[in-house]
Amino acid sequence: MSHKGKFIVVEGLEGAGKSTAIAYVKQYLQQLGHDVVCTREPGGTPLAESLRNLIKQVQTTEIIAPQTELLLMYAARMQLLLNVINPALAQGKWVLADRHDLSSRAYQGGGRQLDEPFINQLRQAVLGDLTPDLTLYLDIDPAIGLERARVRGELDRIELEQLAFFQRTREKYLHIAHTEPNIAIIDANQTIEQVQQSIAKALTPAVG
Amino acid sequence: MSHKGKFIVVEGLEGAGKSTAIAYVKQYLQQLGHDVVCTREPGGTPLAESLRNLIKQVQTTEIIAPQTELLLMYAARMQLLLNVINPALAQGKWVLADRHDLSSRAYQGGGRQLDEPFINQLRQAVLGDLTPDLTLYLDIDPAIGLERARVRGELDRIELEQLAFFQRTREKYLHIAHTEPNIAIIDANQTIEQVQQSIAKALTPAVG
Repeated sequence: MSHKGKFIVVEGLEGAGKSTAIAYVKQYLQQLGHDVVCTREPGGTPLAESLRNLIKQVQTTEIIAPQTELLLMYAARMQLLLNVINPALAQGKWVLADRHDLSSRAYQGGGRQLDEPFINQLRQAVLGDLTPDLTLYLDIDPAIGLERARVRGELDRIELEQLAFFQRTREKYLHIAHTEPNIAIIDANQTIEQVQQSIAKALTPAVG
Repeated sequence: MSHKGKFIVVEGLEGAGKSTAIAYVKQYLQQLGHDVVCTREPGGTPLAESLRNLIKQVQTTEIIAPQTELLLMYAARMQLLLNVINPALAQGKWVLADRHDLSSRAYQGGGRQLDEPFINQLRQAVLGDLTPDLTLYLDIDPAIGLERARVRGELDRIELEQLAFFQRTREKYLHIAHTEPNIAIIDANQTIEQVQQSIAKALTPAVG
């Protein structure tokens, strides 16, 4: 067992089963004796949670520009990184994140079609060379995922977007997962047991 | 009289007399027949005002990282730019701003000593090549300015910084004002009448 903590991220569209997957991964890591710190984005610190509320509110008074939305995501991410993620990793803990940078690239880059150079300038400024050790991307057809999210309750501002928005988001997720290292694509249309088997398989090299 | 609007910014430390100067400039421009839109930063839109409140709150639960503070400033600036400043300039209006980008460079760059490359990456991403037509920098000794601000009432999180913070901020203001174009240094230790004369003189080329 390694004494160095690792940074594991779970990503995916609404209704892909992130919460269930995170609970499984957390238990899996803890059974191996790791100290696990769970985060969520946007959020995870008092200030970042305030930003989460601002971002997700259905605005009635003005349109939140996509560029502003992205800057708020990175402000929340910076705060979480400096106050939670970096200190935990420095203490040898494992960080298990419900969303991280890949969400911004998929939702704001794919869904909202923001310019890549704008996104990349922010990524470089905020993250430098930090990348997760492993990202588990739970892939689901957005029509199925959104239906699951709808039955769960009220939808927030982002979840109220049209289906085409989520289709673009999924395409961006898949494109990045296929072209960059350390991202495992998990078929989230499988049964929970099958999803967990796929996750366990993807985790093996990271926990070894 | 030009039919193209211009972007005029008033900058300076707490207690430098920005509000009085802005009221004077506004009247001055209106008397020349210009349509003037006033903004303030951080703030100036409903979302940006919410961010202003978050930034200025005295935090009891966690430290706001300087990098997070800067990202929030740029998020608020982006929203103001896209929803207020750019549309006003496009309509031929004059924009009169109570603080803008130079504040971030002076306070976060000088006061908080954040890295220039980090600040410049954000400036480039958010502002591109937008620069004010004229910046009026009201220069004051921070000991005098802070005393004025103190008698005005309760101090916010940033105004509670130590004197050395504001001295560094002033040095950065002066350095930039001396090395970059279109920034007029106004001696704010003068009487109100003298300050207004200095402002009128600095405005002449812009309003011509």
